Amino acid sequence: MPSAEVTLESIRAAHQRIAAYVQRTPVIESEALNAASGARIWFKCENLQQIGAFKIRGATSAIFALPASALNAGVVTHSSGNHGAAVAQAARLRGVRARVVMPDNASAAKLANVRSLGGEILTCAPTLAAREAAVARIIAETGAAFIHPYDDPLVIAGQGTVALELLEQVPDLDCVLCPVGGGGLASGIGVAVKALRPGLRVVAAEPAGADDAWRSFQAGTLQAPRTPATIADGLRGALSARTFALMRAHVDAIVTVSEDAIVRATRELWQQLRLVIEPSSAVPYAALADPSLALRGRRVGIVLTGGNVDLDALPW
Amino acid sequence: MPSAEVTLESIRAAHQRIAAYVQRTPVIESEALNAASGARIWFKCENLQQIGAFKIRGATSAIFALPASALNAGVVTHSSGNHGAAVAQAARLRGVRARVVMPDNASAAKLANVRSLGGEILTCAPTLAAREAAVARIIAETGAAFIHPYDDPLVIAGQGTVALELLEQVPDLDCVLCPVGGGGLASGIGVAVKALRPGLRVVAAEPAGADDAWRSFQAGTLQAPRTPATIADGLRGALSARTFALMRAHVDAIVTVSEDAIVRATRELWQQLRLVIEPSSAVPYAALADPSLALRGRRVGIVLTGGNVDLDALPW
Repeated sequence: MPSAEVTLESIRAAHQRIAAYVQRTPVIESEALNAASGARIWFKCENLQQIGAFKIRGATSAIFALPASALNAGVVTHSSGNHGAAVAQAARLRGVRARVVMPDNASAAKLANVRSLGGEILTCAPTLAAREAAVARIIAETGAAFIHPYDDPLVIAGQGTVALELLEQVPDLDCVLCPVGGGGLASGIGVAVKALRPGLRVVAAEPAGADDAWRSFQAGTLQAPRTPATIADGLRGALSARTFALMRAHVDAIVTVSEDAIVRATRELWQQLRLVIEPSSAVPYAALADPSLALRGRRVGIVLTGGNVDLDALPW
Repeated sequence: MPSAEVTLESIRAAHQRIAAYVQRTPVIESEALNAASGARIWFKCENLQQIGAFKIRGATSAIFALPASALNAGVVTHSSGNHGAAVAQAARLRGVRARVVMPDNASAAKLANVRSLGGEILTCAPTLAAREAAVARIIAETGAAFIHPYDDPLVIAGQGTVALELLEQVPDLDCVLCPVGGGGLASGIGVAVKALRPGLRVVAAEPAGADDAWRSFQAGTLQAPRTPATIADGLRGALSARTFALMRAHVDAIVTVSEDAIVRATRELWQQLRLVIEPSSAVPYAALADPSLALRGRRVGIVLTGGNVDLDALPW
């Protein structure tokens, strides 16, 4: 059985497991953004993954780690976004059935995307309670294996593979910045970075309108989420006890950014990087100017987490 | 003195000359676009160059090939788009003055871009005659070296370096597709590809609303351009005698596409590749379905030429 811990070894094992199915995404630089920020920035382009988001790493890590006997009834998850597509894609590659519980107000584009990847969609009321109840019922009825979007050591190890690649691609960073929603990516990156380069700072950036991670760090205990109010739809999830503990051990700081700053940063990254990124992906760049981080003159790696947006409803 | 011919050797020399200044851009694939097209496609992402376009290759090739004695008075060009930014950037890197003649109706964004790269802007009436007169006057008055956007063997050799990289990154292509405006890129790619892989097809794609290359191929003699009417603003230029001759010798076919197809392809590439590309960049993908090309089941390289767009005025 896979370990319940997330370690450098489990992240390396995940990297081997997913290598054949997941892109080693490029890292790009922009002279204009370096000049604008006063830092030197390398952007890790997870928006260029096949499903357009880093979530494919965690889902593939988990689904390919499970023994065939655990997958007889397929897998199930709930998601309104990239994790659902990731689970559908990874299950298709493993040759098992994927059920994705989605809120009945999900956009037609998101439903079509999961369906095009072979996922079977079950809709429910748009609340976390309804989603969790639907998943629990499916598990009880079918025995499908639940692939949690972040509260799972195999998923977290998969997300941590971003950092393995980034540190190989840019060996001499001073700081890695990533967004935080449920905390799977920040946890995985934190574990990998601190094992490989203890002196390298790891900073998680969060919308002020969904700041449970920031409040939990301030309080020193896990705080309940409030109703999220942010355009960064990938970051509306809340930390679990597991991701909070991992982040407390391996992430140096959390900073929050305003909605205005997120929209401005999204547009600036589209213009200067010529990449389609989600608002969630722009949160770390928006946080770069926070004076508490003192990143002027520093070498910074930023993870662009995804690029799935509605091109007919841009936020500017 | 550099040769007036464009050869594999001159393209290789250009590649060495520009290596320190120009990105080796990534090549990306999309399962969704492969499935939609029935071909297997590799996209060469020249939109991810620093100035957001392949034009930096040709400008850097030319400006770094000229002897210092030819650059005492700097360089000059005329451009409403990417070539002007490319010349400004390459001149800055070489440490020489760059004058860019731009039409007085150029957008504020384009003017600001050239200026931010250190280019000195001179405006003129928005006609080719006015531009050429302005450049001639500057040359006469200052002795600046003219860097033509495409009718220059050093510029063409620089653009051909795209093909050197693409053939290394994807060794076993059946066809390379690129857009054609003035013909610098298509000529450079044609020379490189036919020298390295004589059996590999090279196809140039052109907007039906700016089809001088297609008409010239049909007639067998260089045809005068008509007033271009296309959203693909990078492809409004017309072949020169030099680029027509090079393309006749090294390009297998030219196909045209409608404006509707260009807009549809632009949107599809943004959505599926998560890349910001100009409509000009979408022309080859729009052409892929042309039955005369018989590309179903083939391995196709497509050059995405640039990503400089007005994000407040998307074409859909």
